[in-house]
Amino acid sequence: MRGKFIVIEGLEGAGKSNAQQVVCDTLAAHGIEFITSREPGGTPIAEALRTLWKEGIDGEHTTDKAELLMLYAARTQLVETLIEPALNAGKWVVGDRHDMSTQAYQGGGRGLSEPLLTQIRTAILGDFEPDLTLYLDIDPTIGLARAKGRGALDRIEQQHIDFFHRTRQRYLALVENNPKAVKINAELPIEQVSEQIRQVVEGYLASK
Amino acid sequence: MRGKFIVIEGLEGAGKSNAQQVVCDTLAAHGIEFITSREPGGTPIAEALRTLWKEGIDGEHTTDKAELLMLYAARTQLVETLIEPALNAGKWVVGDRHDMSTQAYQGGGRGLSEPLLTQIRTAILGDFEPDLTLYLDIDPTIGLARAKGRGALDRIEQQHIDFFHRTRQRYLALVENNPKAVKINAELPIEQVSEQIRQVVEGYLASK
Repeated sequence: MRGKFIVIEGLEGAGKSNAQQVVCDTLAAHGIEFITSREPGGTPIAEALRTLWKEGIDGEHTTDKAELLMLYAARTQLVETLIEPALNAGKWVVGDRHDMSTQAYQGGGRGLSEPLLTQIRTAILGDFEPDLTLYLDIDPTIGLARAKGRGALDRIEQQHIDFFHRTRQRYLALVENNPKAVKINAELPIEQVSEQIRQVVEGYLASK
Repeated sequence: MRGKFIVIEGLEGAGKSNAQQVVCDTLAAHGIEFITSREPGGTPIAEALRTLWKEGIDGEHTTDKAELLMLYAARTQLVETLIEPALNAGKWVVGDRHDMSTQAYQGGGRGLSEPLLTQIRTAILGDFEPDLTLYLDIDPTIGLARAKGRGALDRIEQQHIDFFHRTRQRYLALVENNPKAVKINAELPIEQVSEQIRQVVEGYLASK
């Protein structure tokens, strides 16, 4: 039987790493075989694209469309070589970010048009999509303060706070319209966030 | 007045560098200001994508779709930051390869579907296209023998010869259906090839 693809989404500092761990622990408790992924990245080529995307070259400004295509190049490389083969082999995949990130950051944050995003996504991914998305909702001022505590901010994290407010609004709209996505209140204490996640995954497993 | 975009296309060893020089010399003789470009590449980010595309990472196989998106990421970065601004400033641009290469190599050579190629091209480039394309037609066995003489073959040049026959057939079909493209017999001695190119460019200038 084909595995399931569970994705964690959310802004910087929302607690995606902890959430991924909770999902993995819950699956493991049920004896489900899984692998993890992170985007952009997850294969040598995709990681090289991630580095180029994050760090740029010689201070050159990456255009919004070039950024979009670099992200989709990394995504299709990961989906074709790692995620799809794992799912087909019956393993589950627990992903740190997937396509909803691009819709939220490049669509909501950068302001790329929905037709452009839809055309690229449809051309490249077809009807491939996560079976369950856990969106960790957090006010960007809280999330970025947490992320800052971890160390230097990268090119994305250095965006103006309005960028993250637009990104969050798009996330909320996407989750609202996606029956396979669940919103988690990520501003609560970590134990409560973890408990919410555990319950959602247990509920999902019970429904299968 | 907006400048014109003239592109040289053709297989490895077809003589694109010489052709680009002939076009530049002809424009210079008419006092036309121009810049040159090469694809994939031409800006720091686009050149980094070119290197990643050509050399890969750790022997990982780049999927055809990831390759396609890396090429378009490099292309849109170049078009948006260098070609469009030059044309808008009234300069002409003489390009070593552009979109027709992707149609021929990734479509004809790799076998990516025309709907996929059309969707990506339309989403990213819209109606942007060269004003004049010079396609240097050569039998791949002759072209590759010439390219081999220049040194080590890269990842693309190491493809099976059938790949290049398919690429040439797609080139020929594209040129046949493109009123802004001219086929040049690149198997003739270099002086005659150069003379053909000069005449085409002179004819184009006279028609403006």
